Amino acid sequence: MCREDAIRIVAVGANAAGLRAAARAKRLLPNASVTVIDRGKLISYGACGMPYLVSGDIETADTLRETAYGVIRDQDFFRKAKGLEVVVQTEVERIDREGRKVVCKSLLTGETTVYPYDKLILATGAIPLVPPGIPRNNPRVSTFRILEEGIVLRKALQSGQIEKIGLVGAGPIGCELAEACTAMWGAKAILFDAAANILPAMLDPEMARIVETYLKGEKIEIHTNSPLQGVVESKEGVTVKTPKGDFDVDHVIIAIGVKPDSTLAANCGLTIGKTGGIFVDEKMTTSDPNIFAAGDCVELKHLVSGKIVILPLGSLANREGRVIGSNLGGGDERFGPVVGSAAVKVFDMNISSTGLTAKAAEEAGFNVGVAWGSFTDRADYYPGFENLHLKLVYDRKTTKLLGLQGISKGEVVKRVDVFASLLKHGGKLEDLLDAEFAYAPPFAPAVDPLYSIACTARNELFEGIHSLSPDTDLDDRFVVDVRRAKEASDRPLPEQNTKNVPFEEFRVNCDQVPKDQNVVCVCSKGVRSAEAVRILKDKGCPNVKYVGGGSLMKLAQKAWDRQEEAL
Amino acid sequence: MCREDAIRIVAVGANAAGLRAAARAKRLLPNASVTVIDRGKLISYGACGMPYLVSGDIETADTLRETAYGVIRDQDFFRKAKGLEVVVQTEVERIDREGRKVVCKSLLTGETTVYPYDKLILATGAIPLVPPGIPRNNPRVSTFRILEEGIVLRKALQSGQIEKIGLVGAGPIGCELAEACTAMWGAKAILFDAAANILPAMLDPEMARIVETYLKGEKIEIHTNSPLQGVVESKEGVTVKTPKGDFDVDHVIIAIGVKPDSTLAANCGLTIGKTGGIFVDEKMTTSDPNIFAAGDCVELKHLVSGKIVILPLGSLANREGRVIGSNLGGGDERFGPVVGSAAVKVFDMNISSTGLTAKAAEEAGFNVGVAWGSFTDRADYYPGFENLHLKLVYDRKTTKLLGLQGISKGEVVKRVDVFASLLKHGGKLEDLLDAEFAYAPPFAPAVDPLYSIACTARNELFEGIHSLSPDTDLDDRFVVDVRRAKEASDRPLPEQNTKNVPFEEFRVNCDQVPKDQNVVCVCSKGVRSAEAVRILKDKGCPNVKYVGGGSLMKLAQKAWDRQEEAL
Repeated sequence: MCREDAIRIVAVGANAAGLRAAARAKRLLPNASVTVIDRGKLISYGACGMPYLVSGDIETADTLRETAYGVIRDQDFFRKAKGLEVVVQTEVERIDREGRKVVCKSLLTGETTVYPYDKLILATGAIPLVPPGIPRNNPRVSTFRILEEGIVLRKALQSGQIEKIGLVGAGPIGCELAEACTAMWGAKAILFDAAANILPAMLDPEMARIVETYLKGEKIEIHTNSPLQGVVESKEGVTVKTPKGDFDVDHVIIAIGVKPDSTLAANCGLTIGKTGGIFVDEKMTTSDPNIFAAGDCVELKHLVSGKIVILPLGSLANREGRVIGSNLGGGDERFGPVVGSAAVKVFDMNISSTGLTAKAAEEAGFNVGVAWGSFTDRADYYPGFENLHLKLVYDRKTTKLLGLQGISKGEVVKRVDVFASLLKHGGKLEDLLDAEFAYAPPFAPAVDPLYSIACTARNELFEGIHSLSPDTDLDDRFVVDVRRAKEASDRPLPEQNTKNVPFEEFRVNCDQVPKDQNVVCVCSKGVRSAEAVRILKDKGCPNVKYVGGGSLMKLAQKAWDRQEEAL
Repeated sequence: MCREDAIRIVAVGANAAGLRAAARAKRLLPNASVTVIDRGKLISYGACGMPYLVSGDIETADTLRETAYGVIRDQDFFRKAKGLEVVVQTEVERIDREGRKVVCKSLLTGETTVYPYDKLILATGAIPLVPPGIPRNNPRVSTFRILEEGIVLRKALQSGQIEKIGLVGAGPIGCELAEACTAMWGAKAILFDAAANILPAMLDPEMARIVETYLKGEKIEIHTNSPLQGVVESKEGVTVKTPKGDFDVDHVIIAIGVKPDSTLAANCGLTIGKTGGIFVDEKMTTSDPNIFAAGDCVELKHLVSGKIVILPLGSLANREGRVIGSNLGGGDERFGPVVGSAAVKVFDMNISSTGLTAKAAEEAGFNVGVAWGSFTDRADYYPGFENLHLKLVYDRKTTKLLGLQGISKGEVVKRVDVFASLLKHGGKLEDLLDAEFAYAPPFAPAVDPLYSIACTARNELFEGIHSLSPDTDLDDRFVVDVRRAKEASDRPLPEQNTKNVPFEEFRVNCDQVPKDQNVVCVCSKGVRSAEAVRILKDKGCPNVKYVGGGSLMKLAQKAWDRQEEAL
């Protein structure tokens, strides 16, 4: 006779989602037998840390497999410490839903084993997307998904086999690898992306341009609007073919994205969404009430766009896993719609975003309003402060927040996380004005950038103080540079048609600005110039705007070094 | 004939709240005449930056008076750039509400001037609390409120006149000054506080103890439970008298808090609250519809406790000022109840909190639950990560969040700001599980500390996994150290009655733990030990708990250096 909780739980996939679900279930159901099956040899590693293994910041791959107290998370660890049976190098061939069993084959011996289950957890992860026709058996062509690939890449860089690398896909992984190959090992990295800009899921073009300019300053070669047309093997390496030309490199990494690994689920008749991800409800149950799924193999609902999306993020996988484990143990936990927060550090630049880009928001049908701003991440008198560039995306009709993009060498993720918290609660512009920030000069300005950018948006929406994107070509406008004379001469605007009318004297001298022209005001951050717009409008200047984010954002599109001087 | 918006606005107080309100009103009402009156000579300075002027991190006082683009914010600046008339060194003697005018006296000439107003803004700030009997005319006894005081203190330290300083009041300013006097100038700093711990408004005792231990390591002398009994002048300095003894110092700073400067408001019959602050509604209107008030002189409602409080914070003053300015300009903005977020950096330690401490929550009548945890601020494999200690305060009946306290040499303010955002929306423990964090190894662990500590709280509340405060004396319990043998021997627990049963083998060896005793499990962070508690309870051990925050928090109470070795 068995106790009620002596059920058999099987999980497929021994990384974040599968192990978290399995371990949590075992904690709540100590009499359950819990088996986790994985096709890989190495399990439970910090995959997001792989770029730092490649870069040499992390010395050995074992670091990514260790607990914080230095124990390798292998089968032995999970058996003894967690009470889980982990079976590695074993492929699940088939799920027999009627018979409630999974049929497995050892990748070492070819032997077949059958594991019966009462509850099954699918955490089969995702598969790198590789366009057809790309040679897969050439060691110079690889993806960057499993730890073994990271180990091989590190060795090749460290030994000097790779002096020039092509990185196809300029998402977070491509960008992190560009640094990893360059900073320590001195390899030349060439980044390609089919989109108009790098980091296209996180940033709109004019924001990405700042990062692109910065990366170029770090000697990274970047080709956007460059979809991969093929990889051709040559005697000494491989050639990456794009509309922009052919590029000979020693190695190419295909990092254009992943697709959910839902084959097993599809083959046993579980519902698969249009995205290719396994359908789950908010309790992470698949279309079979005895089968649950979590991690990169499932599709999720985006809270802001309302669309069904694929969001392969380790942070979500962990949370989803806990929901399954808790519910197996008798709980009633839910996993809500997601807002898609992301962050990436490349060299000294921190980039983070949440919600929708302006492009995505337009595609989702919103009446999109945007605001740009340059700020300091800490009090502007506190030593070591850094500039912070933000772009806010909101709905003009409802004032609902839709997204935030931030770039800084200093603190930017905090603002994104607070913003995401408001997104989760359907926050509006006015909620940013109500947000409370723990303030001291080493941490923030007295008025937080999130507050200020909400003011900027509201000033535009309700008071008609209009801004232009910092990448706007101003050649056909009358440009009023309201910076101090020295600022203007030290870091001049590129436009010929520029007149310097410093803000300190602007109320007196604003008659110098013609009323019959298209006028645009520029200052360093977008604060003085917005105020100048207001003064000009009051004086009867009908057509006047300012450059959002100021010269700091405008010039950062061209040359990051110039911006640095500005500090 | 005058235009409708050509009203006369007078503001009293030319710092954050008054100037922000005045400037915003002027922007919206360009035909208004706006006058700002201040008794001081220096206006519009970053008062929160004064400790960094004292420390030498900021070279000159002018830095605190400058805009980000290097213009001093003096009367001339406000006149030309902002269109405001600022009158300094002028005391407002009386408000004639019926006649709608303020009667002023120049502190330089004694001359009386009368300013009529249509709308009046009171931003009179706060006055340092100084106990009766403290000598006020001795230059060796000062407060730390206005910039002139900061300048004098800096000079005295720099010239070596102060080698030993008494700091009465161990709030943020006292702690910042302790560093400021010590780090650059090598003065000996002695901190006194009447409360049981330093930073009593931000931290509960066991959290404050970590900071106290750290500060002692930086050679700061600390005396808590030491109310000031008097300051006696001596030939060579002053003597600070406390129940702990007499302390001879070269200088003493009284920084025990402030009281709202509401005399002017009281004298003209405006409603003053029990706190001594000016009563305002959510539009920042006083009991007279033509008079508004903002900044340190008003009282506010605390969102979590529901109590009326005084919260003299520059970040709030700015926001309150904008509300007044917007409303004067025809807007309809509100200033909601506050949660009281705060942050302070002392040497390399970042301390931040929001909402209520456990002590304050108990006083407010909540059914208080707490959770402690030690985490890493970034991925624990990412180079340079720092430990992060959190204490979560929640209501056991409703699971509503009440407060958060955090201490780290790394990122802690982000967690407090996100938490504050949830507090603003009446968030519960489960909202922390639903929060989404922008994740990459340089910014956070895959599972954010805020998520983890919510799990800790829920595991206690719903699953009976009970923790003890890290400062609990364990001498009468059977202590099970579940850390690895090397961890346990390198950083031993002080208790004699300790048995090491490493977690990796705990499921096999847990029979070594007696079932008939009061058992407490300890690991480094509170994760393994919580799991050990669960295993022991499953095995029939009735009375078992673990130390919240683990040995890292427990030992940090005793010696910070030891904890550092642990990294």
